[in-house]
Order: sequence, then C-alpha cells, then structure tokens
Amino acid sequence: MKYTVIGTGAIGGYYGAMLQRSGFEVNFLARSDYSYIIENGLKIDSVDGNFTLDKVNVFSLVQDLPISDVILVSTKTTSNGSLSELLEPIVKDGTIILIMQNGLGMEEEFQKMFPQATIIGGMCFICSQKKGPGYISHLDKGSITISPLNIKELYKVQELKEDFIKAGITNDINESLNSARWYKLLWNIPFNGLSVALRANTKEILESEHGYNLAKQLMKEVALGAKSCGVEIDPSTIDKMLKYTQEMIPYEPSMKLDFNNNREMEIEYIYRKPIEQAKLNGIDLPAINILADQLSFLQKYIV
Amino acid sequence: MKYTVIGTGAIGGYYGAMLQRSGFEVNFLARSDYSYIIENGLKIDSVDGNFTLDKVNVFSLVQDLPISDVILVSTKTTSNGSLSELLEPIVKDGTIILIMQNGLGMEEEFQKMFPQATIIGGMCFICSQKKGPGYISHLDKGSITISPLNIKELYKVQELKEDFIKAGITNDINESLNSARWYKLLWNIPFNGLSVALRANTKEILESEHGYNLAKQLMKEVALGAKSCGVEIDPSTIDKMLKYTQEMIPYEPSMKLDFNNNREMEIEYIYRKPIEQAKLNGIDLPAINILADQLSFLQKYIV
Repeated sequence: MKYTVIGTGAIGGYYGAMLQRSGFEVNFLARSDYSYIIENGLKIDSVDGNFTLDKVNVFSLVQDLPISDVILVSTKTTSNGSLSELLEPIVKDGTIILIMQNGLGMEEEFQKMFPQATIIGGMCFICSQKKGPGYISHLDKGSITISPLNIKELYKVQELKEDFIKAGITNDINESLNSARWYKLLWNIPFNGLSVALRANTKEILESEHGYNLAKQLMKEVALGAKSCGVEIDPSTIDKMLKYTQEMIPYEPSMKLDFNNNREMEIEYIYRKPIEQAKLNGIDLPAINILADQLSFLQKYIV
Repeated sequence: MKYTVIGTGAIGGYYGAMLQRSGFEVNFLARSDYSYIIENGLKIDSVDGNFTLDKVNVFSLVQDLPISDVILVSTKTTSNGSLSELLEPIVKDGTIILIMQNGLGMEEEFQKMFPQATIIGGMCFICSQKKGPGYISHLDKGSITISPLNIKELYKVQELKEDFIKAGITNDINESLNSARWYKLLWNIPFNGLSVALRANTKEILESEHGYNLAKQLMKEVALGAKSCGVEIDPSTIDKMLKYTQEMIPYEPSMKLDFNNNREMEIEYIYRKPIEQAKLNGIDLPAINILADQLSFLQKYIV
C-alpha cells in the first residue's frame, strides 16, 4: 500500500521513515520543516540502529499530495478540529486513516468527518522525540497496536499488519478498539499528567514511593473508567505496565515536552474525553479529574 | 491568665504580641531569633494598625521559662515529635495547652503526652507571615475558633475567650473540636496543597475556572471525610468558604512558604491524618490522596 504521513514529527516521522526504508512509497506532509526536509531528508537516530533517508517525498500543501491507500495521522490531537478540512482532498472511498494519537474518541470523530474512509486506531508504545526539523530520535520500545473502529474492516487491519511486519515495525492487532484505547490510556493518563504536575520524567516518578503510588492510584482509576465502558483491566495488567515503564529509559512524555515548550497540552482527548465517557456510564474519576484540572490550570500560564 | 508562646512566628508572634499589648504577661520562647528579639522586641505590621513591643520576655531555653497558665503552641506540626520532651518542664496540673496548629489529631496526641493538662484547639483564620526575626506581618482576617478536647473543660475555653476579647482577638467557641478541626481542614486541604502543586496564591487559584473547580472538588471530599467522622459540612458552607477566600488578599499559605524556602511541609497532619481517619471509617478520599502524594513527591526535592 501507499502511505501518506500527516505530521512528520516524533511518531509520523519515525514510522513513515521505517516504511520508506523498507521500500514502501511514503509521502510526508510537513509545514514549518518542509524546506529543511526537502533539502536534507530525514535523519533517524534509533535504538535499533541509526539511518537517514536522503530523499523523501515531502509536501507542504495537502492538495499537492498524491492519493494514497493509507493516511497516518500523527499530528497532536490539539489540532484535530482543523483536520476535517485539511484532509478532505485526499480521503477517498476506502482510504485507510490510521489514527496514531493518544486519547479517546478520535476514531469516532474521524469516522463522522469521513464516512467513506476506513478508520483504524494505532496505539504507539514508543519513546521518541523530534530533535529538530527532519530529525527524530527513537529512544526505546516502538510497537504499535492496531485496531479497527469497525470490526467488519478487520481485514484491512491485517493488510496493515503485513506491511508493518515488512517494515520491521513490531505490532499486534486488538479486535476491540475500545479495549486498546483504554489500555493505552492506562499509561498516558498517569505518566503524561504526572510528568507535568511533578516536573519529572518516568524514572524520577517511579523511583519515588509517592510517585509510584500516584501512578498506581491513577491507573486503578483508569481501570474503573475502562470497566464503566465495558473494558476489564485487571490488577496484574497495572503491575505489568508499571514494570514496563520502570524498565524503559528515563523518559519525558510528549505532554511534558509540550509543557516545557509552552505548547498546548493534549488534555482534551487524554483526560476530558475519558472522564466524560465514564461519567456518562455513571462513574466519577476524582483522582484523574484532579490531575486534569491541574493541567488545565497550568496550561493557562503557558499558551 | 499568664501566657507562654512556643514558636514566636507568624501565629504565636502575632497573637502573643496582641495579648501582651493589652496587658497580659506573655513569655516567648524563641530559638534562632532569640538574640534579635531580646534587643529589638517585636514589630507587628497589621492590617488593624501597626505596633511594636520594645521589651518582651523572651527565652531561648524552656527551663528558664516562668510557669504560666496557658501555653500557646504555634510551632509547625513537623516538630510535634520533639514537643513532649521540650514542654515537660513547664506543663503542670491544669496548665492549658492551646494548640494553634493546622491538621487533625494534634490535641489527642498532646493529651496523651500531658494527661495533667487541659488541651484546647485553636483554629486560626488569619493571613500572617513572619517577615524576619521578631517581625510579623498580619495581612488579613485574624479570628480564632477555640474548642476543648474534653467538653468538661469548656469553662476553661470560656476563660480563654474572655482574655482574647480583652486582647482584641476576634474569636468564637465551637463545643465540638472534631467539627472545628474538620471545618478548618476545609480550607487548609485545598489551599495549602494547591498553592504548592500549582505554584500559585489563593487569588490565582480562584480566578482560574480550573483552580476554582479543584478547590471545590477537594472541599467536597473534605466534607465526605468529615461526614465519615460524624461532622456534617453542607454545600453552602463550601460556597461560603470559597467566597471568604475570594475576598481575602491574595495569599500564599504557610505550606507554600515552606515549599519556597525548602522547609518541610505539614503533610502529615493536614493530609495523612484526615485520610487515615476517613479510611478507618471506611471512606476513601482519592482526590485528597493525589494531592498528598504529589506534595510528598515534591517534598523529597526540597528537604
């Protein structure tokens, strides 16, 4: 399949480069980095081996993008409101839109915007950062869970899986997008928010007894929220996720980098939507709510 | 009655000076500020009118302190562990110990340490700060709620009340110490912790929609904790307390000053004891727990 990457940053830049390196046709959309990338290509420093792509198909205007089979959406959810208009010219009948974002409810919104498209969720378990224009650092992990919004389109997820295997991208399929999204939130809700509230990376959080307790308490509440939405997350999963994070390199999640750089944080999709969903099902998430309101409070100082 | 002030800071320095100014005999215990105060006395900048006391009875050693009728304990709860030994020489049969601290459970602990004493809680609703040795700034409010640990000793609270009236200290009696302590926590739990977690004063917290929501959510949880301990705090009380705080001068609570100055914060008595009491009564306080663990996490960076 042919690929288009919307948002050539830590996520889209890395996975797009992996696909191109293994022979797939990939078109990249870039805004501010366009001129740099067209001259210098993409540079990937990766824990699995560094590589560069000297020539990449990069575009600054959506209308110039060739039609492709798969659109990887790897922009921040903070700009999802403008994606409907932006993507309009390149979404055709049966186009796969792979949402490589964090949070809850994005796929449903994309399906409303593009009823003609196949919407697939991509939950990226990866430590990566954009170091500069066209320059991505892949620090640890890297697997993707892929999951269809509509189970009837599972065969398309399987096609995607085959391409990812060819590209050397570790992946697995979760037939329940709802389950896969809540499972990803089990990580994002504690670690994104705590990294900002405590001004700390994952290692600093988990090395402290209190940081560890905070992460665990928040995870337990994520599990309550998940349960209210029909997803069972058992305590052993929480312990596994904590261990997974302890074994990671010390990492500043993307929200912390957004905070550090006075950019808008992804509070809406990572916190407000899950809180809202649980509330609709009659469950309050007070600890998560405290963290969300703290982030919103801190946000006002930085935008 | 004769008074002894243990801890000549923002609280003890102010109320002790008010008592001395109106003619009561007051002895002050001071450590690091002893030499300064013996030479310069006490200087009070007060919203109700500035005054100085050129000569004060100040002591650096407890064993030099004359015996008095009332001991005002206005040290931080972080040093309560060492007060048993410290106060031993001056606590006699019937000595009144007035605990002017924030938190829960101090009075019960003092009664265990000093079964011969009358233990009274003093809940201070005041904005005051120590500006330097022997120099206190009283910025706003100033009333004290006094409350006996043992209801049979209510008559001693009434004697105290008469002295406070003579000294111009606004005060009221609450016959239930448990109720008075939880009512004071309704303020301390949200505003002490949030001022640190959000690096903000009371005005900045309440001007923000999210800061206001945070304070209110925490207050509602304090009310749940109170209820589990037999104390009813209704929603209108929460709204009144929020309004009271909005009308105050912009204020950094003592915990924020402790944080700013790398001093130990009063997490144990203001957060852990109330959480523990509610837990004993079968009630979890998840939002308060998140804030408490955040403070403990931040504490480790500053001690």
